[in-house]
Amino acid sequence: MTSAVPAPDLAATTLRLIDVPSESRSEAEIVGLVRELMPGSPTYDDGEVLLYGEGPIVLAGHVDTVPAQGNVPGRIADGAVHGLGASDMKAGVAVMVELARAGVPARYLFFTREEVPVSDSPLPGLFATGMLADAELAVVLEPTDNDLHAGCLGNLQARVTFHGESAHSARPWTGVNAIHELVRGLQPLVALAPEDVELDGLVFREVVSAVRVGGGIAANVVPASAWVDLNARFVRPGMEEQLRALLPDGELEVIAESPSAPPALGNPHVARLRELVPSVKPKQAWTPVAQFAEQGIDAINYGPGATAYAHRVDEQVPIANLEQCYEVLRVFLTD
Amino acid sequence: MTSAVPAPDLAATTLRLIDVPSESRSEAEIVGLVRELMPGSPTYDDGEVLLYGEGPIVLAGHVDTVPAQGNVPGRIADGAVHGLGASDMKAGVAVMVELARAGVPARYLFFTREEVPVSDSPLPGLFATGMLADAELAVVLEPTDNDLHAGCLGNLQARVTFHGESAHSARPWTGVNAIHELVRGLQPLVALAPEDVELDGLVFREVVSAVRVGGGIAANVVPASAWVDLNARFVRPGMEEQLRALLPDGELEVIAESPSAPPALGNPHVARLRELVPSVKPKQAWTPVAQFAEQGIDAINYGPGATAYAHRVDEQVPIANLEQCYEVLRVFLTD
Repeated sequence: MTSAVPAPDLAATTLRLIDVPSESRSEAEIVGLVRELMPGSPTYDDGEVLLYGEGPIVLAGHVDTVPAQGNVPGRIADGAVHGLGASDMKAGVAVMVELARAGVPARYLFFTREEVPVSDSPLPGLFATGMLADAELAVVLEPTDNDLHAGCLGNLQARVTFHGESAHSARPWTGVNAIHELVRGLQPLVALAPEDVELDGLVFREVVSAVRVGGGIAANVVPASAWVDLNARFVRPGMEEQLRALLPDGELEVIAESPSAPPALGNPHVARLRELVPSVKPKQAWTPVAQFAEQGIDAINYGPGATAYAHRVDEQVPIANLEQCYEVLRVFLTD
Repeated sequence: MTSAVPAPDLAATTLRLIDVPSESRSEAEIVGLVRELMPGSPTYDDGEVLLYGEGPIVLAGHVDTVPAQGNVPGRIADGAVHGLGASDMKAGVAVMVELARAGVPARYLFFTREEVPVSDSPLPGLFATGMLADAELAVVLEPTDNDLHAGCLGNLQARVTFHGESAHSARPWTGVNAIHELVRGLQPLVALAPEDVELDGLVFREVVSAVRVGGGIAANVVPASAWVDLNARFVRPGMEEQLRALLPDGELEVIAESPSAPPALGNPHVARLRELVPSVKPKQAWTPVAQFAEQGIDAINYGPGATAYAHRVDEQVPIANLEQCYEVLRVFLTD
């Protein structure tokens, strides 16, 4: 593939985006930089969400990052751009900005607060306007190493509390030990194997993990309460009910839930994109494609970021990835 | 039974002892009050331990209390002395002081830091002098409702840590979930029933309880580590080894251990005391009798405090208990 226009300096743009503070919930400055870099005026701008351009395809990317770990400012070295958010996903945002500046026709959607619970996402405000109702595909430029990552896992966080009755630990039989109840009650959980679920020929793996546990108040008190936080990843609906049935002795409370998204491999635009990007994998994680799927908009993950470096202190993205992603999307959107 | 000397005002002395600050590790003032109340000079005084008098029998009591819960100063009402430490064990200390003031022959031992881990006890300093080597029985005036409470349970606190390997909770099979390991590893613990052990015709109950549990660092991380704190109460030696064998997949670390004490019902002084106090029960808790037993000194619990009120915000002791305990010990020590 060759570019019809002078190649943009994708590495420099990525570095510029890295060096602007953009931790989740403090994105004013990075939103300002995107406004400055993007050609033309946004069709929607509520301070958290910026939408530009037109056409059936939406390119989408979040501008926020996880908190810094001493990896700001960034730098360019050894054929890669290094720094906070390099892969997740300033690289993708840089590709979007440069495609827009080159006049490549698409809708360009930038948004904040992606690295926080989905309940804090500003996207519902845009969805409510109906401005994306006619979109035919959203390409979310999350890090995928320039492979296609189809669909995404739903993400359920729940706390399960086990109740007992407190007692002095010299006479535990006068009470009911809530930690012992938890250990008994979680047996079905730890006996659970990952379950592979095939959708559109892709295998997603449904899993449930205990991620935090706590309980007890003193060294000589049989505790009246103990809890475990679960994190479930799923593609089929009904995970909450499944967990309630699995753990009948605990009291389950949903802390947060993000829906899953189907692979959308039947979408004709995806079929066309697959001709340019043969490698298709299931996305074994949550991404904003689920938010588009909820709106009835097919969506797929495709971006230049290196998945292995996301959220790491040594986060980086190969410059070759930036160039390849830019070129693939340029061809995809202009052909 | 009748008293040969004018009856002391045990309630007033108990109240006076209650009203002096004496939380563990801040006992200077209560130690000073005991010095003031006791007749004669101590044979040993290191600021934490006071020993007075002579004879084969040691009366022993701690002067410290658990922290106040708004129950200082105390008061006398409804036939009881109310306030912090009334039962555990200012009542016993008051009986000791008044017996000494009445010239009843015994060794009187007062000490600090009993309501804290036994490793902080000041008694080893006294034991090291050999001054108690010829003692034939220690009567510890812990609250027993004026029954004899023979022996005491040992108390083992241990942390058991389960190790895993961290992973992203969307791909838990790439790691080992330490909370799941804990749930599996603690099955033998929660299947354990209390075990009754008979000593000198008294039945002690050996028990093990999980009292605290913790683990996990974030909602999307499979944890590499999880721990549980156990509290075991026992009369036979070897509890630590028993727990290690029971929980082979965890890493057990002893946090604190207090030894058990045998009932000492074969001691001739105890036999004589039982004629005055027919009711003998096993002590299903830890008390300083274990510290005497470790030194080869037979010891038994007998005191006026009401066990049901120990450490409670509404702590109290019936005045009738004070008078009965005083009279029993007066007869026991002078006959």
